[in-house]
Amino acid sequence: MLKKIGANAKEAASYVRRLASAEKNKILTACADALEKNAAEIISANAKDMAASDPARKAFNDRLMLNEQRISGLAEGMRKVSRQNDPTGEVLYIKTLPNGLNVGEKRVPLGVVGMIYEARPNVTTDSFALCLKAGNACVLRGSKEAIHSNVAIVKILQAALTRLGHPPKIVQLIEDTSRETAREFMRLNGYLDVLIPRGSAGLIQAAVENATVPVIETGVGNCHIFVDESADLTKAVPLIINAKTQRPSVCNATEKLLIHKNIAKTFLPKICGALAAAGVKIRGCGKTCALFSAASIASEDDWHTEFLDLIIGVKVVDDLDAAIAHISKYSSGHTDCILTESYTNANEFIDLVDSAAVFVNASTRFTDGEEFGLGAEMGISTQKLHARGPMGLTALTTTKFFVTGNGQVRG
Amino acid sequence: MLKKIGANAKEAASYVRRLASAEKNKILTACADALEKNAAEIISANAKDMAASDPARKAFNDRLMLNEQRISGLAEGMRKVSRQNDPTGEVLYIKTLPNGLNVGEKRVPLGVVGMIYEARPNVTTDSFALCLKAGNACVLRGSKEAIHSNVAIVKILQAALTRLGHPPKIVQLIEDTSRETAREFMRLNGYLDVLIPRGSAGLIQAAVENATVPVIETGVGNCHIFVDESADLTKAVPLIINAKTQRPSVCNATEKLLIHKNIAKTFLPKICGALAAAGVKIRGCGKTCALFSAASIASEDDWHTEFLDLIIGVKVVDDLDAAIAHISKYSSGHTDCILTESYTNANEFIDLVDSAAVFVNASTRFTDGEEFGLGAEMGISTQKLHARGPMGLTALTTTKFFVTGNGQVRG
Repeated sequence: MLKKIGANAKEAASYVRRLASAEKNKILTACADALEKNAAEIISANAKDMAASDPARKAFNDRLMLNEQRISGLAEGMRKVSRQNDPTGEVLYIKTLPNGLNVGEKRVPLGVVGMIYEARPNVTTDSFALCLKAGNACVLRGSKEAIHSNVAIVKILQAALTRLGHPPKIVQLIEDTSRETAREFMRLNGYLDVLIPRGSAGLIQAAVENATVPVIETGVGNCHIFVDESADLTKAVPLIINAKTQRPSVCNATEKLLIHKNIAKTFLPKICGALAAAGVKIRGCGKTCALFSAASIASEDDWHTEFLDLIIGVKVVDDLDAAIAHISKYSSGHTDCILTESYTNANEFIDLVDSAAVFVNASTRFTDGEEFGLGAEMGISTQKLHARGPMGLTALTTTKFFVTGNGQVRG
Repeated sequence: MLKKIGANAKEAASYVRRLASAEKNKILTACADALEKNAAEIISANAKDMAASDPARKAFNDRLMLNEQRISGLAEGMRKVSRQNDPTGEVLYIKTLPNGLNVGEKRVPLGVVGMIYEARPNVTTDSFALCLKAGNACVLRGSKEAIHSNVAIVKILQAALTRLGHPPKIVQLIEDTSRETAREFMRLNGYLDVLIPRGSAGLIQAAVENATVPVIETGVGNCHIFVDESADLTKAVPLIINAKTQRPSVCNATEKLLIHKNIAKTFLPKICGALAAAGVKIRGCGKTCALFSAASIASEDDWHTEFLDLIIGVKVVDDLDAAIAHISKYSSGHTDCILTESYTNANEFIDLVDSAAVFVNASTRFTDGEEFGLGAEMGISTQKLHARGPMGLTALTTTKFFVTGNGQVRG
């Protein structure tokens, strides 16, 4: 069955790559309007998903729940994408070779983008909007907990496409939410040009383990802040509080704090006190626990863990090198930050910390496509191939060489 | 055992990313000199590989064989890489956000590059040179048929590194050439940032199927030439002969010829006669066989096959759309070409054929890093993520965001 969906998507991809930007924008606007117009239908489908969900899973249910206001938010997101620049068609260069051949490289759609994600209906509309704007067809596989919502949303998007005279297969939903089908989806070589998993570490790991199509890993953020001995400690306290507590459940929240030993005695109790006052539990190294008695001892596992909660690991380190060595061992390569007034240390940290985003004197919470000015975001890549860090529309494109001549042959 | 090699490589990667270009160039020159100085040692190791090889495998043995001249060629290749621009460190942009944060993106090494390849000792030196110049450590796994040659070469490279005071682990060879170890190598997540298979379709398929680390697919070239009705037929004949016969065993050689029905009656017998005279066997569609009696009928399989030999598939097609549809179904996405004098058809072909390189009026043999002016090449990517088409040094890098502020927090 997936092969049929794959073949449909390939066909739709050939169609959508020919659409001019103005036409793609018209589709996005029409789809946004259709979502708002059919909000009642979506809300009633969403109510079935909500009814089947365990009421105790509060954060989960909050992500799953749709109401009129949230549906307007989804529509507004699509309109925003319609106002972004279309990255496709851009010619990166054309050069003439000594033999008279012209060789150019230009940006083109990827083709078919596969998305696999959890119970967040907003990923359905966001993915469709970004894929379409970059000239791609998409195949979506959301989780079973959001199936009614996703079916309703995709039906509305497909109807809007049909009304405008475009093939509805530009967006397809895999309605079979079994694990077997997910696995088959991950191995749909020849149809999918890329698979992007969005969600928990477990989902991403499953995609990395099982997929034979190219995957872009997204999202896990075990983010560090290193407070160097020269840091401006007045600025450090509100910055760390922001990085940890402003939205602890997201991937760019800070999970670990490394403190230079020369300032630990005074600064560590101060920042740990401020964190504790903000409701954060401290898991520390031996020195941390000695300096701040409310801290509990951190396990080896804790240093690896993305808590996504009001918990922070705190460790006293000898110097910049020790901080970099710790980060290099435990970081997930998402966002790591140094607080320092030393020009040399700031540059060393930028050069030697091998993460998607490296910060000096700013909250890790800024790693985000919108914040970076990339527009709406397709997730944050923590791998190094193709796209690294927040992925905007460009991450949904590839390039193509074009070579024009007048009969040249190779000697 | 591979984890140890992987950990060594990670350590070496942290070291090599700090090396200035001048130092990397010094290493490359010293390694080139060392290869030439120790040619006798390499030749004697190579003789063991040659002695173990079946003399009937002529093309295979030709790729495996090393002599003094070829070793100088390998050394010259390394010197050439030393003269190429270092792609790392390039700042792609820096912008200042409304809140005063500076966000930049710069080009940095990938880290650890894994190579898996067949009995071509030149891949050993080329891979090392390109990886080093782009600031990466590499782990090489050649085939058992070239093991003595590879061990000798890597020993010489490592000795040169040691003499210059650098860690020899910048290049490592996996000496165990078993399939189990190859499989383990393909799943060395946490150590390898990318795996690049170079060689036969079978090897590449095995990597795609088994790898859990990111893979860049290279090389399979089922390349097409479509002769449009408006083509300049005087230029077409020598161009097609060049594309098919100049070096039939390589991936950019043309494997299929599509001919517009309106010119088939006169042009098809002419080009098939010229190809046959050049020793090429013709496998054609029904119409081809009717127009050229020496052709044998092509099977469905033939249309999919990269012959890498003096064989060509020939098919009469109705028009440009039919040619594009055939290419879209059977092409490996490497290089496809149109011969036409129609401006509109040339542009349609460029836009709608979804291959790494799309040609107008030039031999497909030009798809090559050196020919395109990218310098020495790490293979030709036929996938769409990260790198597409000939891969030069830039394909061995990634980017990193760097964000500098003065205490900004997210609101």
